[in-house]
Amino acid sequence: MNATMVNGGSHPCKVVLAASIAKALASEVHNDLAKLSRKPHLHGYLANKDPAARMYADWTGKTCRENGFDFTLHDVEREDLEDELRSANQRDEIDGVIVYYPVFGSERDRTLQWTVSMYKDVEGLSPQLISNMYQNIRFLDPPFNVQKSILPCTPLAVIKILEHLHVYNSFLDYGKRLFGRRITVINRSEVVGRPLAALLANDGAEVYSADVTGVQQFSRGSGLRRQKHETKDLEGWGLEQCLPISDVVISGVPGETYKIPTNLIREGAVCINFSSEKNFHPDVKERASIYVPAIGKVTIVVLLRNLVRLVQNKPEEGGVEGT
Amino acid sequence: MNATMVNGGSHPCKVVLAASIAKALASEVHNDLAKLSRKPHLHGYLANKDPAARMYADWTGKTCRENGFDFTLHDVEREDLEDELRSANQRDEIDGVIVYYPVFGSERDRTLQWTVSMYKDVEGLSPQLISNMYQNIRFLDPPFNVQKSILPCTPLAVIKILEHLHVYNSFLDYGKRLFGRRITVINRSEVVGRPLAALLANDGAEVYSADVTGVQQFSRGSGLRRQKHETKDLEGWGLEQCLPISDVVISGVPGETYKIPTNLIREGAVCINFSSEKNFHPDVKERASIYVPAIGKVTIVVLLRNLVRLVQNKPEEGGVEGT
Repeated sequence: MNATMVNGGSHPCKVVLAASIAKALASEVHNDLAKLSRKPHLHGYLANKDPAARMYADWTGKTCRENGFDFTLHDVEREDLEDELRSANQRDEIDGVIVYYPVFGSERDRTLQWTVSMYKDVEGLSPQLISNMYQNIRFLDPPFNVQKSILPCTPLAVIKILEHLHVYNSFLDYGKRLFGRRITVINRSEVVGRPLAALLANDGAEVYSADVTGVQQFSRGSGLRRQKHETKDLEGWGLEQCLPISDVVISGVPGETYKIPTNLIREGAVCINFSSEKNFHPDVKERASIYVPAIGKVTIVVLLRNLVRLVQNKPEEGGVEGT
Repeated sequence: MNATMVNGGSHPCKVVLAASIAKALASEVHNDLAKLSRKPHLHGYLANKDPAARMYADWTGKTCRENGFDFTLHDVEREDLEDELRSANQRDEIDGVIVYYPVFGSERDRTLQWTVSMYKDVEGLSPQLISNMYQNIRFLDPPFNVQKSILPCTPLAVIKILEHLHVYNSFLDYGKRLFGRRITVINRSEVVGRPLAALLANDGAEVYSADVTGVQQFSRGSGLRRQKHETKDLEGWGLEQCLPISDVVISGVPGETYKIPTNLIREGAVCINFSSEKNFHPDVKERASIYVPAIGKVTIVVLLRNLVRLVQNKPEEGGVEGT
């Protein structure tokens, strides 16, 4: 501390880049990795001709290798993929499976998601895992509770960011660390927005989930009385009602023209953008205490963290007998 | 973690006793103490016949000795006290001075407060220290900024409690760690309530300072634009307006019958009582995320911390040349 006076000049907002959070999270992953008896091996399945999907697959491989994981990419005909995945489920040397979607770009893709064994699903898309998430069930093996359930990567990346920013109060008990926080999540997709709202509410927050159809409240109720969140429609509510009372604003609207009105955001709020477009105006920095403009680099580290979890869950790593 | 499900049964409020916070703070004080070249010596001046004052003096002595500090109590005639204090100011072996008030119980006591050198004032009541506090000036020796200004013990105890509870967000920059927090302080006395409201606002909070005359806002303004807080009257406001929007409620009303209406407190708020009476209803635990029922044990450790600061500020301890 060198300043006699606290600077009252420029805006006090901390802009936090995903890379810096990813780095901190990666070092946690490395610690866990060092305790495993062997290097985890992720297998990627690419069955589409989209250059963007291949780029993402290559990026997964690069990130795996840089962080001490093995990665094998399988180029597969889409009609063969379901059989390939069934075979992968049987092979012990395959620790984790990632499929590069869309494959068929139709409902049939969901059948593929359901084919991946939940014990190898780094993306957390298996029906049992999704069901656990919504029900606030955190283990796969009750009543032993040593095998942790796997959460979907993008919502979990947002959670990890909120932990990093100390929005989760580690003084409170695990599972209740967002108690007292009001959080607006703009986007209620099945892929990110709705699971994210559910996770935040399960951890104790009062969540306002907003999309074009209106606002829903996700909450465990007064005194966190319920074991998991419930939802209710907030009739007549819009961002005008949610934002001024929210400590945290998280947005993931795909449209390029969509912008959140800065004047509605509460002074000193924490603002996080998970859209590939910029949902916040640049002047959000004159309003927020913390602004995270993108989250992609955190998401990929979360995928590696899930892979470590899958290996930790195996009996030979102590996943069943140990703690 | 042993529970599959997060318990949704009893209320989730953490009741935090001052003793546990005092213990954590004392261990910080011990670390600083170990770096000093000698044991700091506090001198207490008792010039009143009130048994409660003597009890407090004895308690100071006991706490000093238990924590590795020297303490000497001086029984003094009240007419001699001003001279005694002037003499203490000159004596190098006296590191800190505490006076047990009230002495005359009149305006004359203020003259006594002003007599204690600000370089020996563990209670932080010297006019220069008080002025620094209100102006958000944190050092005694600008532009060098190595001698830290001393803050009054009870308001500082509340600050230390809020740090302990992670209400101060250590991810944010020093001096701005309450940015985004709304805090109601009930009591606006010159001794505790007003200095506390000023300290919280200087650290970035929007503070609602409430007493029987009404509510004042203490704030550094939008984007913490001002270097120190300013105040404004909130016409027509009462607890009905402040409490439902406050993350933190701090109360210090002396009256035995005074109780804060629990239904006005925001779900998941942090509630701290610094009155010797219980200002919160027992059912606050059904509403708050954290409840601190008393702060006295923290205040006495803060006094020791101030004593360490006074010694650290001395040239021979590196207070002028060092960092």
